[in-house]
Amino acid sequence: MDGLMMDFPLTLSMVMRRAELLFPEKEIVTRQPDRSFHRYTYSEWIRRSKKLALALKKLGVKDGDRIGSFCWNHYQHYELYFGIPAMGAVLHTLNLRLGAEDLSYIINHADDQILFIDESLLPLFEKFREKVSFKKVIVISQKGNIPEGMLDYEELLAAEDDKDFEYTDWDENKAISMCYTSGTTGKPKGTVYSHRSTVLHAMVCAMSSGLGLNQNDILLPVVPMFHANAWGIPFAAPLVGCGLVFPGPFLDPPSLLEAFEQEKVTITGGVPTIWIGMLKVLDENPTAYNLSKMRTLLVGGSAVPKSLIDDFESRHNLNIVHAWGMTEMSPLGTINSLKPRLINSDRPTQLNYRATQGLPVNLVEFRIRGDEGLLEFDGQSMGELEVRGPYIASAYYNSPEGADKFTEDGWFKTGDIATIDPDCYLEIKDRTKDLVKSGGEWISSVELENALMGHEAVAEAAVFAVAHEKWQERPLAAVVLQEGKSAGKDELIAHLAKEFPKWWLPDDVVFIEEIPKTSVGKFKKIVLRETFQNHLINPHS
Amino acid sequence: MDGLMMDFPLTLSMVMRRAELLFPEKEIVTRQPDRSFHRYTYSEWIRRSKKLALALKKLGVKDGDRIGSFCWNHYQHYELYFGIPAMGAVLHTLNLRLGAEDLSYIINHADDQILFIDESLLPLFEKFREKVSFKKVIVISQKGNIPEGMLDYEELLAAEDDKDFEYTDWDENKAISMCYTSGTTGKPKGTVYSHRSTVLHAMVCAMSSGLGLNQNDILLPVVPMFHANAWGIPFAAPLVGCGLVFPGPFLDPPSLLEAFEQEKVTITGGVPTIWIGMLKVLDENPTAYNLSKMRTLLVGGSAVPKSLIDDFESRHNLNIVHAWGMTEMSPLGTINSLKPRLINSDRPTQLNYRATQGLPVNLVEFRIRGDEGLLEFDGQSMGELEVRGPYIASAYYNSPEGADKFTEDGWFKTGDIATIDPDCYLEIKDRTKDLVKSGGEWISSVELENALMGHEAVAEAAVFAVAHEKWQERPLAAVVLQEGKSAGKDELIAHLAKEFPKWWLPDDVVFIEEIPKTSVGKFKKIVLRETFQNHLINPHS
Repeated sequence: MDGLMMDFPLTLSMVMRRAELLFPEKEIVTRQPDRSFHRYTYSEWIRRSKKLALALKKLGVKDGDRIGSFCWNHYQHYELYFGIPAMGAVLHTLNLRLGAEDLSYIINHADDQILFIDESLLPLFEKFREKVSFKKVIVISQKGNIPEGMLDYEELLAAEDDKDFEYTDWDENKAISMCYTSGTTGKPKGTVYSHRSTVLHAMVCAMSSGLGLNQNDILLPVVPMFHANAWGIPFAAPLVGCGLVFPGPFLDPPSLLEAFEQEKVTITGGVPTIWIGMLKVLDENPTAYNLSKMRTLLVGGSAVPKSLIDDFESRHNLNIVHAWGMTEMSPLGTINSLKPRLINSDRPTQLNYRATQGLPVNLVEFRIRGDEGLLEFDGQSMGELEVRGPYIASAYYNSPEGADKFTEDGWFKTGDIATIDPDCYLEIKDRTKDLVKSGGEWISSVELENALMGHEAVAEAAVFAVAHEKWQERPLAAVVLQEGKSAGKDELIAHLAKEFPKWWLPDDVVFIEEIPKTSVGKFKKIVLRETFQNHLINPHS
Repeated sequence: MDGLMMDFPLTLSMVMRRAELLFPEKEIVTRQPDRSFHRYTYSEWIRRSKKLALALKKLGVKDGDRIGSFCWNHYQHYELYFGIPAMGAVLHTLNLRLGAEDLSYIINHADDQILFIDESLLPLFEKFREKVSFKKVIVISQKGNIPEGMLDYEELLAAEDDKDFEYTDWDENKAISMCYTSGTTGKPKGTVYSHRSTVLHAMVCAMSSGLGLNQNDILLPVVPMFHANAWGIPFAAPLVGCGLVFPGPFLDPPSLLEAFEQEKVTITGGVPTIWIGMLKVLDENPTAYNLSKMRTLLVGGSAVPKSLIDDFESRHNLNIVHAWGMTEMSPLGTINSLKPRLINSDRPTQLNYRATQGLPVNLVEFRIRGDEGLLEFDGQSMGELEVRGPYIASAYYNSPEGADKFTEDGWFKTGDIATIDPDCYLEIKDRTKDLVKSGGEWISSVELENALMGHEAVAEAAVFAVAHEKWQERPLAAVVLQEGKSAGKDELIAHLAKEFPKWWLPDDVVFIEEIPKTSVGKFKKIVLRETFQNHLINPHS
């Protein structure tokens, strides 16, 4: 027996209608390349998104066509988020930080028909232009220099009347956007989001147990809009009428801090690197910025060192919220919050919990698998995290070789090694490929790294496996020291010995200038492993 | 092109798994018939719900069978909410306040197979027992007096081991529960909720823009669990791990206030009648109860007089939140909140907005229809409110005659006459059948009633249409005076004349002892109309 409820699809059409009806006066602010702030309202944003949908139709774009974007975070990019799906096409956000090889591979693999690109990024486009073939290239122009043969975004919109637009109530499983993972190994793989997955994810973001986004919030996404749709949070804004501030290309701490203060930002999100840099600026000028409106600095993309949470709170009264997700998960998997019973616990206990990845959000289910099968949620048993839920990928786009990331019973294998404690707090211990397996026992490189980064002389630290004659693998630490500070190997190992068993301690510490990173700021340990592969076998090589 | 996301259904199975995993220690507290408080945890609640599912299977209950509940608000009723759908059957909550005729009609129309009933309600059952035929009657016993031929709920559970239970990932459109509307005209009609509609509705409740339910909340639903599933809110609790307090049969103000204080309740909900009574008790004993934890008194079911919001806030620092919904809408349609631009407006302005039904919640869409077609959202144009969304009924259960409540293009006709202002604040002006149409122009009986109830001598007031020779219909007011206070017709009409045009003013005021009410506390104007139908035509009849 079925329910007798309306067969009403969850679509972006519904989200747009809500935005224009309920929150027409809400502001969307963008920092432009000349550093000035562009301001307009939800109402104008919806009108322009509708014009874009009409213009794409006129250009011959077909239902389901993939349309690339190569843009910073700004209002025009936000128009692409809604205008492209509004006429049935699929937005494919391209990562500006990838190399020409990866970019052309991704564009050709997705078979992108049209490219939207910032004028300032045209020089980057030149590097892969010959390897791809777009039917049209549309330039979001700042200075008005549109190269021959390309179209002007503003001219395209100007030719349309938004009153000609009519909403379609799409099948909720229809694709709206795609994003390729910047894998550290193998070819990039595409995740394809649907109307349904995007609306459900947005609702979870707006739940009190999610980010609690509401009409009094002003959100500034530092995380790029080409990185899992800026963590999907911009889709949540029009559900609740939250204000938006886009930083454009200015992601340096002073520019961001200035925007936070001026626009009274209440919630922001980005990778740890952003906040590490910002902490330094704040420490140097503790009273320079009024950030009294800021309620949440959402941090994800890599693990957040406990010391960072502590420093922001104790020195600047700013609340870091640790979250974890993946492109394949839309991306929100966990958000950290203290359970009520922990609210009166002592500060070290609270910090220990807050440094974990947190609790699974609604609609996401977890399990962990060891060599022998599924493991208990006891906070000790380490295994690969598997996840499922209505906004998690079931497959990669045209990628038969990606099938091994999914279990037979329909779970996604995250590639993360984790523990889950009896309260359900998740701790990511490592990537499967970064685990150190010493004499058959696992050592978590991430825990060692976080502890090293808690040492006052250490700026960054990566721990990784190198070959060892007796134990097969042993951990080695690569450390970047803080400017003007010093610490030796023995001091750092002694620092770790306070917390970890002897067999976990790195066999050596190498001091380097910089940790190599991926395009989204994650440590590229594969490079370190290659550089130092024989370090312990031939220590003097 | 479809998205590549998991085909993961939104079901109560998912909600139960989340509850048992994340919030096992959360408390569910129930006031028992002997006034003592029963306490147990989410963990125990889930275990017992699973046992119930197993027991029903053993009793021969089939997938899709309807199972009646005839119960107050308590933990066992909450077990029925989850245990019955957990084995594929459909919970049919029966309204204790209906007469024997209506109850037997509803039970037979739904073809309920089994009845769960409170021991204390067995005398009520006797009144319709002969007209219905259940395969089994299961008694939730307090004193252990199980009549011959009936089963004991506790014995049923005791025979099962919850470890034998396995979750089913149902089709999300499968029915889980049903509720008949207590129509003031025509036969009662059944709304059938699905897994999907229930989960989506629960998510909306837990959104910051909804009720913002979260893990620090303790919810006490005063609204009966047989009334649109206690407004669907209990389904939201396990999404976020909020505590629950069930008042059992004790809905009198002192009992509720005692429970609020003792259990540190943060959010509660019920019809205006409850709060009018409570205000009186609080006014008499302003310092008797510590309600400092209470953040929200949700009020719905009928319009909330502005004076009630004002009195609770100014005299007791308690926040009344006006909401509106219908059984056919799961039921949440609007929740009142002040838009940010109103937060600094003066108090009378704020109260005017807070007395409206508020803003549409997520997933609910509105339109209003007048005689000539759809109307503008200008705050002036009055028409019948039509709604749609994924948790709104598309039909009534086995009711071809109910089809006229749905438009051809798939909207539900609420039967409410409303205006919507440019900010999207909804104001219900009347029920279509309660409107007064004087000389072709509409007069809102609800506005007149609210104004009358704002007069200090008036306890309750109903305004309704009676026949008139010249104007076809004219408004008549029926007023119940406050104990020990007095006011005459002229004084009350003069009170209204300050606010309304002359032609809106009731032609007469009749003073009565009590306004007749429906089983859920709404004014039964049909009785007044019948009693006074010739009042203006033959004023001395």
